[in-house]
Amino acid sequence: MPDPRFYHRAGPFKLADLAGRCGARLAPGPDPGLLIHDIANIDTAGAGEIAYLADPAYVNALSTGRCGACVTTEKLAGKVQNGAVMIADNPRAAFAAIANAFYPPVPPTALRLDRAVAADAVIGADAVISPGAVISAKANIGARSVIGANAVIGPGVVIGEDCRIGPNTTLRYCLIGNRVIVHPGVQIGQDGFGFVSGAQGHQKVPQLGRVIIHDDVEIGANSAVDRGTTGDTVIGAGTKIDNLVQIAHNVEIGQRCIIVSQAGIAGSAKLGNGVVVGGQVGVADHVKVGDGAQIAGKTGVMRDIGPGEAVMGYPARPIKQFWREIAGLSRLTKRDK
Amino acid sequence: MPDPRFYHRAGPFKLADLAGRCGARLAPGPDPGLLIHDIANIDTAGAGEIAYLADPAYVNALSTGRCGACVTTEKLAGKVQNGAVMIADNPRAAFAAIANAFYPPVPPTALRLDRAVAADAVIGADAVISPGAVISAKANIGARSVIGANAVIGPGVVIGEDCRIGPNTTLRYCLIGNRVIVHPGVQIGQDGFGFVSGAQGHQKVPQLGRVIIHDDVEIGANSAVDRGTTGDTVIGAGTKIDNLVQIAHNVEIGQRCIIVSQAGIAGSAKLGNGVVVGGQVGVADHVKVGDGAQIAGKTGVMRDIGPGEAVMGYPARPIKQFWREIAGLSRLTKRDK
Amino acid sequence: MPDPRFYHRAGPFKLADLAGRCGARLAPGPDPGLLIHDIANIDTAGAGEIAYLADPAYVNALSTGRCGACVTTEKLAGKVQNGAVMIADNPRAAFAAIANAFYPPVPPTALRLDRAVAADAVIGADAVISPGAVISAKANIGARSVIGANAVIGPGVVIGEDCRIGPNTTLRYCLIGNRVIVHPGVQIGQDGFGFVSGAQGHQKVPQLGRVIIHDDVEIGANSAVDRGTTGDTVIGAGTKIDNLVQIAHNVEIGQRCIIVSQAGIAGSAKLGNGVVVGGQVGVADHVKVGDGAQIAGKTGVMRDIGPGEAVMGYPARPIKQFWREIAGLSRLTKRDK
Repeated sequence: MPDPRFYHRAGPFKLADLAGRCGARLAPGPDPGLLIHDIANIDTAGAGEIAYLADPAYVNALSTGRCGACVTTEKLAGKVQNGAVMIADNPRAAFAAIANAFYPPVPPTALRLDRAVAADAVIGADAVISPGAVISAKANIGARSVIGANAVIGPGVVIGEDCRIGPNTTLRYCLIGNRVIVHPGVQIGQDGFGFVSGAQGHQKVPQLGRVIIHDDVEIGANSAVDRGTTGDTVIGAGTKIDNLVQIAHNVEIGQRCIIVSQAGIAGSAKLGNGVVVGGQVGVADHVKVGDGAQIAGKTGVMRDIGPGEAVMGYPARPIKQFWREIAGLSRLTKRDK
Repeated sequence: MPDPRFYHRAGPFKLADLAGRCGARLAPGPDPGLLIHDIANIDTAGAGEIAYLADPAYVNALSTGRCGACVTTEKLAGKVQNGAVMIADNPRAAFAAIANAFYPPVPPTALRLDRAVAADAVIGADAVISPGAVISAKANIGARSVIGANAVIGPGVVIGEDCRIGPNTTLRYCLIGNRVIVHPGVQIGQDGFGFVSGAQGHQKVPQLGRVIIHDDVEIGANSAVDRGTTGDTVIGAGTKIDNLVQIAHNVEIGQRCIIVSQAGIAGSAKLGNGVVVGGQVGVADHVKVGDGAQIAGKTGVMRDIGPGEAVMGYPARPIKQFWREIAGLSRLTKRDK
Repeated sequence: MPDPRFYHRAGPFKLADLAGRCGARLAPGPDPGLLIHDIANIDTAGAGEIAYLADPAYVNALSTGRCGACVTTEKLAGKVQNGAVMIADNPRAAFAAIANAFYPPVPPTALRLDRAVAADAVIGADAVISPGAVISAKANIGARSVIGANAVIGPGVVIGEDCRIGPNTTLRYCLIGNRVIVHPGVQIGQDGFGFVSGAQGHQKVPQLGRVIIHDDVEIGANSAVDRGTTGDTVIGAGTKIDNLVQIAHNVEIGQRCIIVSQAGIAGSAKLGNGVVVGGQVGVADHVKVGDGAQIAGKTGVMRDIGPGEAVMGYPARPIKQFWREIAGLSRLTKRDK
């Protein structure tokens, strides 16, 4: 499932081979010689693909899919109706090992660029490549887009028309729409912050997704947008992001949101359309924020926020409640020395 | 009023023409053929310039000025004593359209740089331009200043003497004093975060100001300083700014302030002299902070702070009150399960 | 004591000469002609080195050392048993002047690089230097390490084997272990935020230390790691740091810590092994955090945290107490209008 423009797949591998590589065992039934061709997310995996299931919350996602194989725990194995079952103590760690088999680390010499603008990059009409910019192999720069000085565009990146990509930016593993403005110093498409922690320390989970940025998005100076683990980090059309904002892996942001400076959106959080996120807000991982919600500056969001809700505080509360509590605390402690 | 070193003005335009471009209508009285030559701020606009008035709080600013024309609401129109009056539902949106007429977007091909150091840039005695640095047209680098590797200096930028501009920085639309230190990764002079929001989404407000950085300022790694919308973002002499700090458009910071890492100062906030801003502080837009005020780390400042005040908390309170309330809350809730 | 790979020492200086340069006076006893060869920290200074003692908390550190000379206050002078004593109103300011004598500012022309990859840089087997990268004099890049496009590696920097240094990064005054990943836009080794403040404003304290990054560390996009003042900023093996994190001067972080996005660790704070620091956390300067402590997102840590403690809130409290107080406040203020 990883995008072949960005990732080079090895394999296929036999089921038994994959089990051996990740220290898992096959549940009774499937043919150990079954060929697996790729990794996938639990909710989209098809025949010949392998996914993992570590959290009961995702059992429903699985039941609608029809994956070729699934790495899961002893306990959850019974829930897997379709596909071959592989049992591991830590399915996420096992899946990371399987992902490493399909997408082995690239040797350094394969990363060598012979020239600043690759011969097979596509540069649209009236596009401008500024001095010092690096355009990697098979990158595609749309008509009238401007790549700023010393910007770095990675292999296979697609940038639409009429974009302004600022100086000193890095864009990798991403697809960018039209009329997108990326301010200086923005870093897009680097690895998400994903590890499997154990006795050997923190082992890196391969980050094999992309960043998708739709039309008319603006991203402020020195912000960072990580790519998805599997699947994508997505920023919807017309959303405007201020400076020094963190967008973690697999975040999905709707259309026409406003995200003010120094806010941070943690992994897999989902924001609807028209959400307003104040400065220095933190949104915890996997949280869902409904359409039109408003989050006041410095708020810490640790639970889902409904459509149109206005919240403030740490932890986030309805905004009226926040101010009532602040006033109440002041009154209750007034006579203290 | 925008600095001609940075912005190229079109026009002049007839009053009626501008009204047509922004969907406003002329109030009775003025000559529709009156020539308008430039845009300006409400408090500094002179004859032949057009400003806007959307907020009753700025009526006083207007009364001292003598602008050629003013876009305002039906309701505020009576307050405009000098100059021609133009009526719009959303004067800020109308003004953005007018600003776009005077300062139309630059076509991409006009942004092409033929070489990394422009032929008409001025490089002072014993200044150092490091490998990969880009020095744009008519930029002026003072004597003994060092431009770090892969730094990008935009057109018309003026840098004083004995400055140290770090690697991987971008400086545009700015005037920099003497002995200024800009650490690596700092981005200065990009667009502020200003939009007019409506049914068509968030329309960009043209950002036509500058950044003015006075002598002996230091700006920490990966900080961001946006330029003014109209008017300037200003950092006073001797002020020291730490890493990853956000300075929004039209912020004015006095002399000898200390701004610790990851603090954010929102649009049009004004800090006096000798203000100390702790780490991760947020100062809301348009807030005024008096001389010598001290703001403890992580404080959220949403109201004006008087000279010499010491505040802490979210929202900001006098520092003694903050600690009393923390202690009081602990005591009041002690017996809870 | 500053690393001669990074700093060029002047001197030696006679004791009386140093006293004159910093406006201090010699206490009775020592030979004014005594030669001092270098500066040092109070706890490591040896014969021929000068340190300073401004805070009674460091008297013990001094007593175990045997420094050649010590700048201190009238009040603390009696505590200095070994070495010559120099008296100053502000020993830190005096020491800054002495440090400037031993390590005078480098003239700009000495910073000129003739070419992007210095002739005397050492590039290991199969290492990759991408287009636009700048490798300064005597830098040493280990085998199979990849230096990203437009990265800037300063003089004398040592990078181990199998590292990935991202595009648009700056690495100076640092020693990097093996298998270290530095994501795009990271700035390492710039001056810490240290000033002596007085009537003349904020005078810069020379920053003469290094950054030491051990094996298997990962540092997220657009993070900043300042070098030590004297002594080092240290990140222990296997520690993983997310995007937009601030690590200040002389911070010491243990092994296998996790530091989530937008956290900030202030100067001289010390984290043990296996500490987990949530997103947007602030840790104040000089604070100690014990092994295995867990700090929830957005917490403000202003006091030492014991091993294994789990804290949350602003200020940091035991996590159960934090939630009890939040619930209690809600209940106590419920009937308010």
